[in-house]
Amino acid sequence: MSSRALRPESTEVPRLPERRPARRVAQAARAATPVVVVKQAPPFRMASRETHPERTIVNAGGVEIGAGGLVVMAGPCSVESRQQIRETARRVKAAGADMLRGGAYKPRTSPYDFQGLGQKALEWLAEASRESGLPVVTEVLSPEDVDLVSEHADLLQVGARNMQNYALLRRLATATKPVLLKRGPSATIQEWLLAAEYLLSGGNRQVVLCERGIRTFETATRNTLDLAGVALVKQLTHLPVIVDPSHATGKRGLVAPASRAAVAIGADGLLIEVHPCPGRALSDGEQSLDPVEFAELMGTLRARETAAGAQIAAGMGSASTSVVTRSRMSHNGRQ
Amino acid sequence: MSSRALRPESTEVPRLPERRPARRVAQAARAATPVVVVKQAPPFRMASRETHPERTIVNAGGVEIGAGGLVVMAGPCSVESRQQIRETARRVKAAGADMLRGGAYKPRTSPYDFQGLGQKALEWLAEASRESGLPVVTEVLSPEDVDLVSEHADLLQVGARNMQNYALLRRLATATKPVLLKRGPSATIQEWLLAAEYLLSGGNRQVVLCERGIRTFETATRNTLDLAGVALVKQLTHLPVIVDPSHATGKRGLVAPASRAAVAIGADGLLIEVHPCPGRALSDGEQSLDPVEFAELMGTLRARETAAGAQIAAGMGSASTSVVTRSRMSHNGRQ
Amino acid sequence: MSSRALRPESTEVPRLPERRPARRVAQAARAATPVVVVKQAPPFRMASRETHPERTIVNAGGVEIGAGGLVVMAGPCSVESRQQIRETARRVKAAGADMLRGGAYKPRTSPYDFQGLGQKALEWLAEASRESGLPVVTEVLSPEDVDLVSEHADLLQVGARNMQNYALLRRLATATKPVLLKRGPSATIQEWLLAAEYLLSGGNRQVVLCERGIRTFETATRNTLDLAGVALVKQLTHLPVIVDPSHATGKRGLVAPASRAAVAIGADGLLIEVHPCPGRALSDGEQSLDPVEFAELMGTLRARETAAGAQIAAGMGSASTSVVTRSRMSHNGRQ
Amino acid sequence: MSSRALRPESTEVPRLPERRPARRVAQAARAATPVVVVKQAPPFRMASRETHPERTIVNAGGVEIGAGGLVVMAGPCSVESRQQIRETARRVKAAGADMLRGGAYKPRTSPYDFQGLGQKALEWLAEASRESGLPVVTEVLSPEDVDLVSEHADLLQVGARNMQNYALLRRLATATKPVLLKRGPSATIQEWLLAAEYLLSGGNRQVVLCERGIRTFETATRNTLDLAGVALVKQLTHLPVIVDPSHATGKRGLVAPASRAAVAIGADGLLIEVHPCPGRALSDGEQSLDPVEFAELMGTLRARETAAGAQIAAGMGSASTSVVTRSRMSHNGRQ
Repeated sequence: MSSRALRPESTEVPRLPERRPARRVAQAARAATPVVVVKQAPPFRMASRETHPERTIVNAGGVEIGAGGLVVMAGPCSVESRQQIRETARRVKAAGADMLRGGAYKPRTSPYDFQGLGQKALEWLAEASRESGLPVVTEVLSPEDVDLVSEHADLLQVGARNMQNYALLRRLATATKPVLLKRGPSATIQEWLLAAEYLLSGGNRQVVLCERGIRTFETATRNTLDLAGVALVKQLTHLPVIVDPSHATGKRGLVAPASRAAVAIGADGLLIEVHPCPGRALSDGEQSLDPVEFAELMGTLRARETAAGAQIAAGMGSASTSVVTRSRMSHNGRQ
Repeated sequence: MSSRALRPESTEVPRLPERRPARRVAQAARAATPVVVVKQAPPFRMASRETHPERTIVNAGGVEIGAGGLVVMAGPCSVESRQQIRETARRVKAAGADMLRGGAYKPRTSPYDFQGLGQKALEWLAEASRESGLPVVTEVLSPEDVDLVSEHADLLQVGARNMQNYALLRRLATATKPVLLKRGPSATIQEWLLAAEYLLSGGNRQVVLCERGIRTFETATRNTLDLAGVALVKQLTHLPVIVDPSHATGKRGLVAPASRAAVAIGADGLLIEVHPCPGRALSDGEQSLDPVEFAELMGTLRARETAAGAQIAAGMGSASTSVVTRSRMSHNGRQ
Repeated sequence: MSSRALRPESTEVPRLPERRPARRVAQAARAATPVVVVKQAPPFRMASRETHPERTIVNAGGVEIGAGGLVVMAGPCSVESRQQIRETARRVKAAGADMLRGGAYKPRTSPYDFQGLGQKALEWLAEASRESGLPVVTEVLSPEDVDLVSEHADLLQVGARNMQNYALLRRLATATKPVLLKRGPSATIQEWLLAAEYLLSGGNRQVVLCERGIRTFETATRNTLDLAGVALVKQLTHLPVIVDPSHATGKRGLVAPASRAAVAIGADGLLIEVHPCPGRALSDGEQSLDPVEFAELMGTLRARETAAGAQIAAGMGSASTSVVTRSRMSHNGRQ
Repeated sequence: MSSRALRPESTEVPRLPERRPARRVAQAARAATPVVVVKQAPPFRMASRETHPERTIVNAGGVEIGAGGLVVMAGPCSVESRQQIRETARRVKAAGADMLRGGAYKPRTSPYDFQGLGQKALEWLAEASRESGLPVVTEVLSPEDVDLVSEHADLLQVGARNMQNYALLRRLATATKPVLLKRGPSATIQEWLLAAEYLLSGGNRQVVLCERGIRTFETATRNTLDLAGVALVKQLTHLPVIVDPSHATGKRGLVAPASRAAVAIGADGLLIEVHPCPGRALSDGEQSLDPVEFAELMGTLRARETAAGAQIAAGMGSASTSVVTRSRMSHNGRQ
């Protein structure tokens, strides 16, 4: 049970501003003639809560995302060795993680940077998953890799740079595994939901959204974590939304507070970078927790869930019923 | 006692990236000659936790900000009438607010918009403060208004557009009342702390920082609430930091989740717009809560504080001592 | 005569997007009821070309800005010594500059940085102006300095950080000298024009706008020079618009190409930092030209004006008449 | 011969700021121990002018881009019918365009928008190209389409959303046709050059860069055209750089002034949307010129080239030699 139990959900779905007014309205405005404006569904028809009020629960290898509890996915930025991923899996499992993350194919700004170990990393990930019992989330970069990655992973990640890679989205729309769709660094919320719409309208209803920070003028953090955007997206769509505090902040010391805030604002899960030895990581070491730091964070987060549960039991929470109801909801995903 | 009790504070103070490398380093880089880089204090010397590790507690009309508890300031965007501000004061006091907010001088993008009622509004604010017992925070726009506003208010707000209005900052550095310094919509964290440095170095040590959203490409929310920035600023400075979820989001339906997240990330307080009848507000009605919505939000926030306190009592919190210590800390403000 | 002679001016004034739809339209959209949308003047009524199609010419100490020719203002970021400003004035005059710039009061991010020499610098500026015959533009930071600065300067600059310093704008609206209003680093075009509206509606019709770069995610240049914004503003308003390529780019090597582009897009003038010895400048040395570089740039710019004039004489230009007409237009400024 | 003849090229190549200081420097800064900073090549080794001072000329179906003249590519956003593209080709050829643009595969934000006519459109493009003699530039969205598009097009466009689609870049690195790489809407200049580096290091040396506006807070224009960025990129790389004023501004009335400014700042070409009837366009009608407007723009641009040439002949230009030299340079592209 999660602290989100305390948040009564609004029944009204808000509207996004239109970036461009419909041509007819604009023309009428110029001509000073009357115009009839008719209420329309938002452009992300299938992702919208207006057309689909019931929340979607995504099943990733047996773990339910969006069912009311907090789902924590943890692991290294890149799979660097068989030992590294097996040890990480063991440590994050012990700390209470629900899923294992790890990159086999890495999108890198420079062609000269480490690009990931590919298929070998996928196999190590699958082995670590079997040993730990943790389902795996990993990124897929190319349409032609979708089949191979689907064999080894339980949740297929679309990275931020690929959010509008339509060839990849179209291929994933017919994949047999659920998809984790990261928000692009300069994508508006509407563009993000329309990217999800490519997956939904193409046949894959099992979609999880992931906020990972947007690009702004501020350079003190790697990106700017848009948590109010997470709250807004939860109002606009029935899809689960998780948060990646590691990429959003780029700083180890901000991962824990950002995680707590993400839970408080209603995130359905967290995607956290954990490395056995962040100082030696081949990528993103500065934002990775070590296993001890991760265990401390999990302790805090689970204590909050317990406290929230106690509040509900004591009648302090106003939305306890909705949580019970939601956790009993049957899957509405694709089989 | 606040939910921040759960967060052990890091003892290491992070460093901001330098936007411009020191000239000597850059020149040496070109010349391929050795260079000695010496550790320097951050440019915001007096605001930095490196030089002043003990947290500052600001006393605004008897309310302590930064002492460990959550300080909630609530009220209308603009003071519109004597009745409106008196009723609002009564309602937000009943709901548990700690301070009353209300604008007498309004900075408006257009010269044709409502500019505030000025001195009359200040007097009504002072009256509502006496009746309710709530200290007042209100904006001061001009150096020449500082004396008048100081007579009627307990905390002098510098609005986001004036964060780098140095004539105003210099005048406020010698004011007898504490200052609430809002972050500019395009101000980096370093620029914000340097604006605070104008106040501190000029003689006013009683400064509260307020994050109110930064301007980004996203238009679905009025601004982008930079909560990870709040966590970072709390690590960089000893000054209290509060959050304005109303201006940050611009949407009534996001004020409550943003407030919960702000508390979870360690904000020392909240600045929330409440209007007896948001639909009739002369400014910012779309982001104002009505008194009933505000009371609901306060119920949730106070329940969380209680739950956090219970956790601490039960030994689940790791930082309980620090909170007790902090709340016993004597004022380190200006006398 | 300027190269802008080649650009026929559109007679249609474009419309800015509304950031927030009028409430009635939004409500009607929800209710699916008809709504009448009536054409309205833009919110910057007096600055708009719709209500004032004739271009404003601003007279700054005898130099006409907006009259068809390119007005170049040059000089150091800060006035550092009597000798420095006198030498700079002599050199930029010799190179063909029309006005002298130099900062007496400097808005600085840090209170510990050089803040300008104040009144002494104003007097040296006035002396250099008399000797060189170049009118002076300099920044005024505070309402209380307006009278003093007006005594010594011909054009009063409002810096980017003060674009929405309404106390300062209100005071300048009653000043006896014209105003140069810089765009704020995160100001939209509409906000910029509304800041001008404070000056115009308050009584000062002699306003020049200055684009100096906006703040974006890109850090390779100090700011992002919004030249298409300059073209749009020229269509929206009758006020002259100049460009500051020094602050916009922050790099000496980009000042010349940015200046050429600014002229090509229709800027009425340029504000360029020139320092006798940029390497020793107390502020902004990296973006300052030395007098030789400035003279080279002026040579290129004036050659282009001549070439443009030759084209017109040879019948290649389509807008020659409008230029002649414009340069004969009488002042429409404030008397 | 182009107006760029007037711009003497700097021989010094500037440096981009490092977004993240090298770890050793940062560590040394903390430890106050000496550190040796050694000059390094920029991370975009093959794209850099430091390692490759001679300018690259790209040959697209016989048209040389980067050879000194202005290359204008024009045509509709989308190929909508055989007649539409044939008529457009005829009209833009008559107006003086050098290449024909037109979209067969369209990346669209919404899955419900017109997605392009695909292979049929490619065939019509090829037919229009044969009839008009204009080489074709068109976008390729997916690695699997590269062979088909290469059969019909002379220059393969990577759209802004795909700038970091590494699967696509890797495939294009082995293509037999040159590539036009658009800057991503939130890509820094360094990221853009590193994306080019994927193409260069993978074997395709025929790369043209295209600035098309970046995403900022400003919504008055569709994007913010970063022309100073174009000047900087021309200093950093030997690759040709062109500008797309249509997408950058999103407004028909700004295309001409933005084109003039792009030429003035040193762009090697322009990519302009032209539609026989913009009001009936299936996509981007608001930013498309009609053939008459395009012909007017071409007249102005060519007149400027002539004037610039006349200046050179008369000895007013200082860089005439370099242009002659450059236009005699042999291809350094891939054979």
